Amino acid sequence: MAGGIAAAAFRRMPAQNDLRVNGDRINAHLTALSEFGKNPQGGVSRVAYSDFDKSARVKVMEWMRAAKLDPKIDFAGNIMAVRPGTGAGLKPILFGSHIDSVPEGGNYDGDVGSLSAIEVAQTFAEHNVTTRHPLEIVIWQNEEGGLFGSRAVSGQLTAAELKTVSNSGKTVEQGITFIGGDPTKLDQVKRKKGDIAGYFELHIEQGGTLDTAKTDIGIVEGIVGIKQWEVTVTGFQNHAGTTAMDIRHDALLSAARFIEMVNRVVRSVSGRQVGTVGKIQAFPGAPNVIPGKVVCTLELRDLDDKKIDTLYASIVKEANAIGAQNQTQFAYSELHVNVAAPSDPKMRTIIADAAKGLSLSSRVMPSGAGHDAQAMATLGPMGMIFIPSVGGISHSPKEFSRPADIVNGANVLLRAVLAADKALA
Amino acid sequence: MAGGIAAAAFRRMPAQNDLRVNGDRINAHLTALSEFGKNPQGGVSRVAYSDFDKSARVKVMEWMRAAKLDPKIDFAGNIMAVRPGTGAGLKPILFGSHIDSVPEGGNYDGDVGSLSAIEVAQTFAEHNVTTRHPLEIVIWQNEEGGLFGSRAVSGQLTAAELKTVSNSGKTVEQGITFIGGDPTKLDQVKRKKGDIAGYFELHIEQGGTLDTAKTDIGIVEGIVGIKQWEVTVTGFQNHAGTTAMDIRHDALLSAARFIEMVNRVVRSVSGRQVGTVGKIQAFPGAPNVIPGKVVCTLELRDLDDKKIDTLYASIVKEANAIGAQNQTQFAYSELHVNVAAPSDPKMRTIIADAAKGLSLSSRVMPSGAGHDAQAMATLGPMGMIFIPSVGGISHSPKEFSRPADIVNGANVLLRAVLAADKALA
Repeated sequence: MAGGIAAAAFRRMPAQNDLRVNGDRINAHLTALSEFGKNPQGGVSRVAYSDFDKSARVKVMEWMRAAKLDPKIDFAGNIMAVRPGTGAGLKPILFGSHIDSVPEGGNYDGDVGSLSAIEVAQTFAEHNVTTRHPLEIVIWQNEEGGLFGSRAVSGQLTAAELKTVSNSGKTVEQGITFIGGDPTKLDQVKRKKGDIAGYFELHIEQGGTLDTAKTDIGIVEGIVGIKQWEVTVTGFQNHAGTTAMDIRHDALLSAARFIEMVNRVVRSVSGRQVGTVGKIQAFPGAPNVIPGKVVCTLELRDLDDKKIDTLYASIVKEANAIGAQNQTQFAYSELHVNVAAPSDPKMRTIIADAAKGLSLSSRVMPSGAGHDAQAMATLGPMGMIFIPSVGGISHSPKEFSRPADIVNGANVLLRAVLAADKALA
Repeated sequence: MAGGIAAAAFRRMPAQNDLRVNGDRINAHLTALSEFGKNPQGGVSRVAYSDFDKSARVKVMEWMRAAKLDPKIDFAGNIMAVRPGTGAGLKPILFGSHIDSVPEGGNYDGDVGSLSAIEVAQTFAEHNVTTRHPLEIVIWQNEEGGLFGSRAVSGQLTAAELKTVSNSGKTVEQGITFIGGDPTKLDQVKRKKGDIAGYFELHIEQGGTLDTAKTDIGIVEGIVGIKQWEVTVTGFQNHAGTTAMDIRHDALLSAARFIEMVNRVVRSVSGRQVGTVGKIQAFPGAPNVIPGKVVCTLELRDLDDKKIDTLYASIVKEANAIGAQNQTQFAYSELHVNVAAPSDPKMRTIIADAAKGLSLSSRVMPSGAGHDAQAMATLGPMGMIFIPSVGGISHSPKEFSRPADIVNGANVLLRAVLAADKALA
């Protein structure tokens, strides 16, 4: 009997370093979640505010309840569940991700971090782990559309943005109501700096760095800043048959030189910065007319917002020289700005130690993609954990992360939460 | 009384080299025609088969009757009027142009040649000029849509093309019926090589060569051949934030290098050849996605079809090297081919002599644009007369040719017809 009691006690309260998530359960949940909005060719189209999104959220709340959590939908439509802590007056440690997808997306972006967060809570429940800090497991709504749920909480969401039409066809405002929020009460979900003790998010890398280097865990040093511009090139529209080559003011020729130059300028300095021209239209857009106007986009990303500005200045300067070659003009209008969000050095150390304790290799790296973590970084110390994306493919039905890597990531998250619970104020 | 008779005789039959068109009347007709389909910002949108086109054709036939012509609409919808000749069994000399316009076109493209042809006939009528050859004054239908009227007569129009939807919204078939033709009887308008003694067309240059060089008259050495391709560049679509610059297969970067290369290759050899990329689309076409596919057009024009083929071969070869740089692929599908149509050396000499006799400067030059004359060149000797386009602007409300240049062109046409009547079999 005594032995029996000792065994039960051991099961209830193992040494925290021996705690492991139930890997089979996470992967089974991932498979089950992939049924909601499944594409014929694989992956999912579970865009925010769709019926698939709504029904998947019901399923996720079911799993949360099985993890002894009591999920609630906040006014912004986020699913939040608090696991109480023992320390008086301590702010919560948040962790989670999102389950909405892009159109024709994959089964890992957001899902891995969301289901791992629930799994960590369930592991704690099964082993009667209590923490000093309250823990908040969160499933953010409409990450893919522009971090709407997390930015409502960080107070960055503007009233005007509620009118944005999402991929579901509903406006964000309609969508929030549809999933059980109340867009008229967003003020009540806002938190301010210091309202959270910390935030962790586990996510797939979405790039090929970890996969190529065969590294298990990425420790995100920060989420890159993003600036986007609409670039208009103005030339002179004319007849493609009768206008000699040397008197043309071909806006598309200048745009072509611009695209090549952007690639060269961005690659001319060392670092992980990226620059992309993703969209282009020539006017009038006929095979037999020299384009008089071209509109294209320019996007620059880097961890250092100043580097983005420096690259942009070089691009503008070189574009002027390109325009002068054939008397075309370049004009820029800013489309979108996301300032860079560095992670917290303490949180990076916690994640590095967690990986090391599990004998996993790790490397510090930027996140080239945006994440809800960047909104949370404005409220408190933020840490992000990456696992490999096979072939670096994401936002595609071909997106894939290996089950073993997912379990590794969830175990790093579990350890990091426990370590942060000790380390954070 | 004898003096009176002599004066009347002189009025009836002046020396042909003293004959001049009524310049004020041509320009007044041009102004009157510009009311049909006038744009708010100037110029006209008198697309073929529109109500404006139909009512302008009624007006033009009125002017033909004033010129003692008896206009008829053939089964293809062309307006034709025969002025009988004195020679037995001689084939007709044709001259004319078109009065349909591109959307938001100008008041000179086609109109100048059409109204000058009528004016030449009216001048002959007023001066009782008779010719050996029958003269046929012709207003071709739907030139801008693809030389439909003239190609029906040359036998090049295919049944499938009748289903083409024109800028009016009507199919060519419906359009021909709308303007008084009969698309079921097109076989009856076909002529064969040798059925015409010759063809002249006066037209605005639509380029800036004559205007820049301050030359009065262009003697067209031929209408350029045109080849158009749709070019598909295939890369790999990926996340613009997470995909490092050195592992991208950016289809738009390759397309940009292609556009720059096309310009370089076309300009690398001497001559008047032109090459244009006028249309482009990147897929999926978002600022934050590396394009996985780009579709653009390529158009090459030259008087020498072999030169077009040589340039194309160089372009394909260089594109392969561009694709190899970042593992993207180029594929081509032919959109459109127009073989080059040389003018007849005799007709060029006739036009040159006509210009010289009027003390006008002239130069031999290619026509970079397509014209009904290229269909007629397959039936008999073809000659084309160009007058300057101010600033080289065409297919635009800003298209302009000076009244004096128009009168010069009409007088060259008049002399050329009379000279051809003597010279041609």
